[in-house]
Amino acid sequence: MIDPRTASGLRDLGPSVAVPRERLTSTFRAVFASFGFTPIETPHIERMDVLTGKGAGSDEVLRQIFEVVNKGGERGELALRFDLTVPLARFISKHIDELGVPFKRYAIGSVFRGERPAKGRFREFVQCDFDILGTESVIADAETAHVIHESLAAAGIPEFTIAINNRKILDGFLESIAAGGRSAAVLRSLDKLTKIGREGVRNELTGRSRRKAEDSGDDSAADKNVSKPQINDLTSDKNEQALTETRSEVPEEPPLDLDQADRLLDFVEAGKGRYDALDYAAGIVRDFPNAVAGIENMRTILNLLEAVGVPERRVRVDLALARGLDYYTGVVFETTVTGWERFGSVSSGGRYDNLAGLFTSRRIPGVGASIGLDRLTALMDEAGMLKDQANAGGVLVVQFPGVDARVSASIAARLRLRGIAAEVYPDPIAMGKQLGYGSARGRAFAVIVGPDEAARGTFNLRDLNTRKERKDLPLDRLEDEAIAAIGAAR
Amino acid sequence: MIDPRTASGLRDLGPSVAVPRERLTSTFRAVFASFGFTPIETPHIERMDVLTGKGAGSDEVLRQIFEVVNKGGERGELALRFDLTVPLARFISKHIDELGVPFKRYAIGSVFRGERPAKGRFREFVQCDFDILGTESVIADAETAHVIHESLAAAGIPEFTIAINNRKILDGFLESIAAGGRSAAVLRSLDKLTKIGREGVRNELTGRSRRKAEDSGDDSAADKNVSKPQINDLTSDKNEQALTETRSEVPEEPPLDLDQADRLLDFVEAGKGRYDALDYAAGIVRDFPNAVAGIENMRTILNLLEAVGVPERRVRVDLALARGLDYYTGVVFETTVTGWERFGSVSSGGRYDNLAGLFTSRRIPGVGASIGLDRLTALMDEAGMLKDQANAGGVLVVQFPGVDARVSASIAARLRLRGIAAEVYPDPIAMGKQLGYGSARGRAFAVIVGPDEAARGTFNLRDLNTRKERKDLPLDRLEDEAIAAIGAAR
Repeated sequence: MIDPRTASGLRDLGPSVAVPRERLTSTFRAVFASFGFTPIETPHIERMDVLTGKGAGSDEVLRQIFEVVNKGGERGELALRFDLTVPLARFISKHIDELGVPFKRYAIGSVFRGERPAKGRFREFVQCDFDILGTESVIADAETAHVIHESLAAAGIPEFTIAINNRKILDGFLESIAAGGRSAAVLRSLDKLTKIGREGVRNELTGRSRRKAEDSGDDSAADKNVSKPQINDLTSDKNEQALTETRSEVPEEPPLDLDQADRLLDFVEAGKGRYDALDYAAGIVRDFPNAVAGIENMRTILNLLEAVGVPERRVRVDLALARGLDYYTGVVFETTVTGWERFGSVSSGGRYDNLAGLFTSRRIPGVGASIGLDRLTALMDEAGMLKDQANAGGVLVVQFPGVDARVSASIAARLRLRGIAAEVYPDPIAMGKQLGYGSARGRAFAVIVGPDEAARGTFNLRDLNTRKERKDLPLDRLEDEAIAAIGAAR
Repeated sequence: MIDPRTASGLRDLGPSVAVPRERLTSTFRAVFASFGFTPIETPHIERMDVLTGKGAGSDEVLRQIFEVVNKGGERGELALRFDLTVPLARFISKHIDELGVPFKRYAIGSVFRGERPAKGRFREFVQCDFDILGTESVIADAETAHVIHESLAAAGIPEFTIAINNRKILDGFLESIAAGGRSAAVLRSLDKLTKIGREGVRNELTGRSRRKAEDSGDDSAADKNVSKPQINDLTSDKNEQALTETRSEVPEEPPLDLDQADRLLDFVEAGKGRYDALDYAAGIVRDFPNAVAGIENMRTILNLLEAVGVPERRVRVDLALARGLDYYTGVVFETTVTGWERFGSVSSGGRYDNLAGLFTSRRIPGVGASIGLDRLTALMDEAGMLKDQANAGGVLVVQFPGVDARVSASIAARLRLRGIAAEVYPDPIAMGKQLGYGSARGRAFAVIVGPDEAARGTFNLRDLNTRKERKDLPLDRLEDEAIAAIGAAR
């Protein structure tokens, strides 16, 4: 006998989770399509050089890559995708001439990372990505936030906040404190502000934590070879890889001195809110054209979101929002569910100006975001938002001993034609067991035809919740008599 | 620069294929759910011992397995699933106590086989499986054919035939010619009847081709180490692996002598049709209880399918239908699209009595089938059935130079609220280019608001097919004025 368990870090999803997940992805598809996004599919397996090309993934992600080896094949040639963004960059580079721009695509699929198995961490998870390629328009930036908003609202998330920022503002601020060009390292640290606090980020930015760790011989910080993901891998966005960077990857030279670090932290901590945060930032970085452009971009986004009816409370400017990944160049987004912030961001993204640079000399700017299906489902599950969602509704048609199976089969077929899900119990076992099955599966009604009813051409309709039964309904008026009751309870 | 191509044997699917594929899978999900099937998800990666357990896959499939290796991990531990049936067997063995039976699940997902790259062969393809576990009822057998029928009808396939047979009839016939116990080898050969003809099967069954090949030193037949898949890998069913068996796998001893082979071939070739084929078979195998039970099973299936309204012409008894895979024990199905038979079966399956035997001592019978999405899509594409399906419909809202982007963004948002897909062009480029984009994307209408219209609060609605424009429609009556025209053209 072989043990029927999944491989380490992987899991089965039964109906109680798979049904609401399917409802969510179908909701997202509908929202994406309503904005003009179309689906594409790329393979789960990519060439290794595509995934490991410079800038495609962080060192952390590359350490977690799953290689794929054909029987008798060589190692190092194939691997499983770790996100949907690198495949998109490859796809658009290859197909841009036939597709044209702007090109708005969505993709929903599994990605794979060999993280160390732990509770709540999985090595396969589903990302729901949408991107607008081939435009630098702020309209596309605003639309990205709008799509996040409409998706989560349609998913039934009662309250949530989309935090936005623009990389250019931070770049400009760093120039203003004579720290231009050190954005990458600064952003990576800043990204951890919520997690490790102001003091922690300050220490990292100024290199104090690293020295301390080295001085004390702290193995866990000094060991460069061990993967130490710091967040739950129910990933939610393109940037997860950056979030999982370990302290050992902080570059040798600390990016800022103490004064610079404090000024930066003061700046980003003061800059939260809406227009007031932008006014505050504008006052400080007004001599830096990049930063001014970033602020202008954010103002337009806020205006557009207001115009399309996104409630004010759901959009927040956060100058501390960094999104660690190097490829972002403009607006960045992060979304948390109110009251469930500890789950982290359920949808994140931003603007990148040259994502496809690995594959083509054509510059292909774009903007997009990703919804982390596993994280969102886990959150909704814990918040009780998935309750009863796996209930199937519809009808169980009971198999009465001694009654020709054609009777139940044809009643079920007629109900399906009217849009009612109808399941026929396959075996003529005891009635109570069949009804128990129907209740356990969440059916609303049972249709029962015993020998007498079959002879009279009638049936009984039993409400599986109230256990009330309407008896002897005429079979030939099934469509009109029973559908109303069943339809109402669907 | 990295070449943006996919790995060998893998492919990208752009919107023209991905849109209709998504429509198909969503159609199938709806049909499966209407019969009471619920979704489950299992990982793409399985433990190697699960996939290579005795009987899980044929030698051919095991040679095609893709290994998965974690960075720094050992080889031989993990692999990509090659179908959805083995994972189902593992899943139900693990979860049967919490789920109970009967358990009706569907699963739609990618599977992977490292077949030799060739035109029309892909190493990743999507199967749409549905199975009823935990019952031996003929009602479930008939329902399987019914679901195949409803799925293909809902997919818009105009005409198709579901061929059915029952393994027990062939088993009984083999007993009647003193060849009982040789079913497996016989079925594998019989499966190739359409492909290699009566003479070819006869030669295989009697070992004549093998001797001939050995005599003539025919390398291609004698080389046991080279994989030679014989059919297109746009697989459509659980049994593909059996279909791809090579001649080198024919066992040493020929299963039948010449007289037996001829009698078998006469029997199966005469047995095509509906009840008459069953009457014919019944006359020949009446002394063999297994075969009689198989015939009774088929009669009931035909009766039930008739009762639920499946047209007679779409169900055909075919005593030659073998479905090579060892695990089938009762009814088997194969489905071909009329006029497109050369694509092979687009949906196949059957009854298995002990699929989970690898993982549990509990006997879990079941019946189910699989729709091969890639094969079906390729067929529909070639038959012109996908034409215009990728057309998005809905509206392009044009970005007029000098008009505040909030105008177009808010019109689009209002249309979406009324269920109309509305895409905003992100850049205020020349009008002709924007309209060309809308046509190319298959939008039905363009909404145009120039500076004058913006000032007056009106808009123009342009039919992108006829190029007719309704001008100066009042913006505040958009919902009522324009929706009708747009909705009708969706």
